Amino acid sequence: MNFCSDNATGVSPEIMAAIAAANCGAVMSYGDDEYTQRLQVKFSDLFETSVTVFPVATGSAANSLALAVVTPPYGAVYCHAESHINLDECGAPEFFTGGAKLVTLTGNHGKIEPETLGKILDRAGAGVVHHVQPAALSITQATEAGTVYNPAEISHISEVVRAHNLHLHMDGARFANAVASLGCSPADVTWRAGVDILSFGATKNGAMGAEAVVFFDRELAKTFPFYRKRSGHLFSKMRFLSAQLEAYITNDLWLKNAAHANNMAAKLAAGLAGVEGAKFCHRVEANEIFMQIPESVIAAVLAEGFQFYRWDECTVRLVTAFNTKEEDVIALVEAVKRHQ
Amino acid sequence: MNFCSDNATGVSPEIMAAIAAANCGAVMSYGDDEYTQRLQVKFSDLFETSVTVFPVATGSAANSLALAVVTPPYGAVYCHAESHINLDECGAPEFFTGGAKLVTLTGNHGKIEPETLGKILDRAGAGVVHHVQPAALSITQATEAGTVYNPAEISHISEVVRAHNLHLHMDGARFANAVASLGCSPADVTWRAGVDILSFGATKNGAMGAEAVVFFDRELAKTFPFYRKRSGHLFSKMRFLSAQLEAYITNDLWLKNAAHANNMAAKLAAGLAGVEGAKFCHRVEANEIFMQIPESVIAAVLAEGFQFYRWDECTVRLVTAFNTKEEDVIALVEAVKRHQ
Amino acid sequence: MNFCSDNATGVSPEIMAAIAAANCGAVMSYGDDEYTQRLQVKFSDLFETSVTVFPVATGSAANSLALAVVTPPYGAVYCHAESHINLDECGAPEFFTGGAKLVTLTGNHGKIEPETLGKILDRAGAGVVHHVQPAALSITQATEAGTVYNPAEISHISEVVRAHNLHLHMDGARFANAVASLGCSPADVTWRAGVDILSFGATKNGAMGAEAVVFFDRELAKTFPFYRKRSGHLFSKMRFLSAQLEAYITNDLWLKNAAHANNMAAKLAAGLAGVEGAKFCHRVEANEIFMQIPESVIAAVLAEGFQFYRWDECTVRLVTAFNTKEEDVIALVEAVKRHQ
Amino acid sequence: MNFCSDNATGVSPEIMAAIAAANCGAVMSYGDDEYTQRLQVKFSDLFETSVTVFPVATGSAANSLALAVVTPPYGAVYCHAESHINLDECGAPEFFTGGAKLVTLTGNHGKIEPETLGKILDRAGAGVVHHVQPAALSITQATEAGTVYNPAEISHISEVVRAHNLHLHMDGARFANAVASLGCSPADVTWRAGVDILSFGATKNGAMGAEAVVFFDRELAKTFPFYRKRSGHLFSKMRFLSAQLEAYITNDLWLKNAAHANNMAAKLAAGLAGVEGAKFCHRVEANEIFMQIPESVIAAVLAEGFQFYRWDECTVRLVTAFNTKEEDVIALVEAVKRHQ
Repeated sequence: MNFCSDNATGVSPEIMAAIAAANCGAVMSYGDDEYTQRLQVKFSDLFETSVTVFPVATGSAANSLALAVVTPPYGAVYCHAESHINLDECGAPEFFTGGAKLVTLTGNHGKIEPETLGKILDRAGAGVVHHVQPAALSITQATEAGTVYNPAEISHISEVVRAHNLHLHMDGARFANAVASLGCSPADVTWRAGVDILSFGATKNGAMGAEAVVFFDRELAKTFPFYRKRSGHLFSKMRFLSAQLEAYITNDLWLKNAAHANNMAAKLAAGLAGVEGAKFCHRVEANEIFMQIPESVIAAVLAEGFQFYRWDECTVRLVTAFNTKEEDVIALVEAVKRHQ
Repeated sequence: MNFCSDNATGVSPEIMAAIAAANCGAVMSYGDDEYTQRLQVKFSDLFETSVTVFPVATGSAANSLALAVVTPPYGAVYCHAESHINLDECGAPEFFTGGAKLVTLTGNHGKIEPETLGKILDRAGAGVVHHVQPAALSITQATEAGTVYNPAEISHISEVVRAHNLHLHMDGARFANAVASLGCSPADVTWRAGVDILSFGATKNGAMGAEAVVFFDRELAKTFPFYRKRSGHLFSKMRFLSAQLEAYITNDLWLKNAAHANNMAAKLAAGLAGVEGAKFCHRVEANEIFMQIPESVIAAVLAEGFQFYRWDECTVRLVTAFNTKEEDVIALVEAVKRHQ
Repeated sequence: MNFCSDNATGVSPEIMAAIAAANCGAVMSYGDDEYTQRLQVKFSDLFETSVTVFPVATGSAANSLALAVVTPPYGAVYCHAESHINLDECGAPEFFTGGAKLVTLTGNHGKIEPETLGKILDRAGAGVVHHVQPAALSITQATEAGTVYNPAEISHISEVVRAHNLHLHMDGARFANAVASLGCSPADVTWRAGVDILSFGATKNGAMGAEAVVFFDRELAKTFPFYRKRSGHLFSKMRFLSAQLEAYITNDLWLKNAAHANNMAAKLAAGLAGVEGAKFCHRVEANEIFMQIPESVIAAVLAEGFQFYRWDECTVRLVTAFNTKEEDVIALVEAVKRHQ
Repeated sequence: MNFCSDNATGVSPEIMAAIAAANCGAVMSYGDDEYTQRLQVKFSDLFETSVTVFPVATGSAANSLALAVVTPPYGAVYCHAESHINLDECGAPEFFTGGAKLVTLTGNHGKIEPETLGKILDRAGAGVVHHVQPAALSITQATEAGTVYNPAEISHISEVVRAHNLHLHMDGARFANAVASLGCSPADVTWRAGVDILSFGATKNGAMGAEAVVFFDRELAKTFPFYRKRSGHLFSKMRFLSAQLEAYITNDLWLKNAAHANNMAAKLAAGLAGVEGAKFCHRVEANEIFMQIPESVIAAVLAEGFQFYRWDECTVRLVTAFNTKEEDVIALVEAVKRHQ
């Protein structure tokens, strides 16, 4: 029973079916196909505004390409110290931007705080040649701490971002989990709250390997195709990425999958709440649980064959997914309780 | 009927089945799975030597990553002026290498000539600080002209490459077509002939989006994982790339697919050989035909709905694929003859 | 007696005096000094239009920084195959642009031909994602062949450049020699003929290490300061660069120095014109002579202690400078004649 | 009276004389001259070991080039959060390394603490593909806080560095001030304490624009010339850089200049010690003073025409230099006292 990551899952049946269905005859390559063209309409419908959308296959590509189009090589991308782009992409944003600097902010529970951000940007040296030039803020929704920004929080952040002439990027590797958690329109936590570009994740939530880079500020999209091609992320048989994304947003599959993962996390959290010596590091608002558990319990449960990652000393991360079985959640809770 | 590119095709049924079969339960992500591990053994068997192999999803990524590990930013990659890496990847090799220079060579029928190469390398300024430093030669097999290097030709090239302390990379986007054409062991046109790194293409020949970067000089492979991750080409659900590659080399699927494509090209070429005013630009040795056809014929055939690319004035490219139907070949020949 | 390069010379007495004179007390660093500020006015006067000018210390920095501000990483810089930026800067333009491609053109006597350029740009794939995007043309004045573009030639080139939406950069490492040769206003061969950015060289013509990057299109200058700082080319004690440049353009020193060098080259060329078996490769229009001389003569003259570079087989380059002595020219001519 | 920066000073008379003396006749360019060659011997003598030394013109170039040769693009350079390379070079290290990441450490008084460093490196993810790979530590001597590492402190740091297979770089923009302060051999705080590469600053301490990159691990020096050329930092008239550096280390000029600056800082600190409401932020160990002074005093003294930088709220930086006059120090002390 694997609680390591939503990356360890396979593919949603609906998406696998869409891939198979797309395998019919010759279509023009490199995105000049009807699957990809339909995405423009469907994502615009989903977000209740005209967007430009580009399929790519990995989250690192989505994030880095989005940042590359708004950040000059002498620029700075502000982000949370714990963010995936800062810690877990082997320097991909630096690579794609031609060497821009990621300037990290701390903030409780994985969130950027507008006041902190404002103070730092006020003193960042915009216009002063000795300093990298503030270009973008990247926030993660749901955050790397498993928490979720509500629309008001994002709006407060984007006000600071606008006031300093930056662009606002959202790493939405788990965007579906956030929206399912909030129960709002996807527009409410993106462009209506001031987001310019969204990395709309699908892979962790049931796709095989597909993410959509969604431009709400469509002017910014103009150079994206060149950055994508140049980085080897323009797929010749693009229809198979686009078909995944289309199935993903059809009939609310993305939200259903995410809601299931969130529910499983909630159940798991509820089950573990009473465990002696256990303590949640953050509120459980999406599909990730970070909690302290006594070392002896961790060891015993791992020894039983449950799989999950240690995060820090005495701290573990438990991740649920679109296909997590309730029986597995129950089994994990029981195992922890057995060893407490 | 689409003769534009082997990229316009879908996926071989055997490969689609393998993808579906891989969708069973949780496996560890980022290549720490049995599918990917099996590739090491199976590619070593295929090439009759111990290799290190890395799956990626696009040919541009395969080529650029391979070149990045052997080329310093102040280095030079030598290649044919018509090569895909030089003309059709929007500068991807320059991006991945941190700004190395592609130095182009001319040569008939898409081939690098050892004598020309030797003369140019003798005068390239190795060790002289004013000049970019020769680092690698990249050759394409089958070539961009649809021709094929035989083992002796590659050996002659690699002797020059060795004598000048370069590494030899092979862009094998259509490697299967070349090997099927030659009827030799894949080892004979790679490491036995001096190739260090091969971009082993599968996408054009029936995969959905999968290429293998094969290191015959395994020492060179050590930094590859970092370059791959950093460029967003490490897939979380790697098993779905690896499963494609495994199916591709199982039961000689790769060679069967390629042989079919080659046969269709040969039939097409035979059929067009007698057309008035038509002239082959190069020998047809794989699955691409480049030929001059009177402009009026081109226009008339396109008007009938046949799809193919104009290459130069009065010159067209016709590409066959693993699933090209003989009836389509016959139809195209007839259409051309009807309008000649 | 050194005819290797104008780089082998020392510093003009007027410029050395200006350096010494600038060494008086504290001034603000990084260009926030009156020397640097005066340059803006004086260069605007010199070029009869408002320019923005930035001092840097080397020609490679000047060229690469100029190109970096107008070329995206997925861009292409067109240049002559023999150009310094292509052959002699170890890939500096690729480095500064973040990996753009230099696309080379051939052309007689070091010159770009508008017709050739037009044909190539027509087919360069502007807007097509597979290809690097044409961004700039760089021409060299005086050329690497020692020839000089006249205003009309540059205008013809710039018409093609404009028609394809590129920017026009001029590498003026020997700009003074060209202007002295033409006898025109510096404006006539720059902005009036369509040049956007000029690398205005001083080092080869009497400065210690100073070049001015002159922006005629001042909008383009906005990001330059960041590229310069980021590449380590913003000098803290900038006044010593600016003082060199100020002295260089004061009282026509730059033209006097260049005229002397040109005269010495003309004398040398005249003296060598009758040598048996000798042949000029190009017209001698500035301060460089490229000529074929029998191998035995080359060897004999070098053995006497004269210094110059072999360029190709049986071909030598002879360079004169602002301080070349007429007696040395006479001595070289006599030596060659003695051995013919 | 300027206490803004040692960058605001001019050139030591001895160095200006050396520049003038080097202006005699033609010498080969690009460092193939006797001035540059002598530096190898003289720096080896100075450091009591065989070194390889490269002149460059700016500190940013020295630091970035040094880091580029030991840091792959997927690497991490560890440094103090307040370090010049992190804050004041507009991302130059990121540019020269091809996009490596600067990972910042905090530490009191501008110093890296070995224990902190060790803990961070233990968890840095060496060998794990998701994370940038630890490559180098850069420390600053004297630090950006005006403090000085003693040999034992550097040795403790270098033990941690070695244990984690990093290289150790020292940014010695004010190396002379540190050595003058310590009264030790320059070897004691460099290679004997484990430093691999030193940016040996001269510009702030009396040169016009010259820094020496000194390789104690000479193997590491091999690729440096290409990085230098490629970044436009190989000077054609190199002799004028080398002559500065030669004069700088001849007859202990570098130490005499630095000792004077340090003495002036000590006098200034002593004079300001008793000022009401004033407080030193760090010990004054070299030529920089950071202190809190009541806002009203700062304003009044600036209004009198004294020049210095505000650093933080109520905090100023005062910098002395090789040519600071004692009377100016006294005047500043008196002005502060007058307004306290």
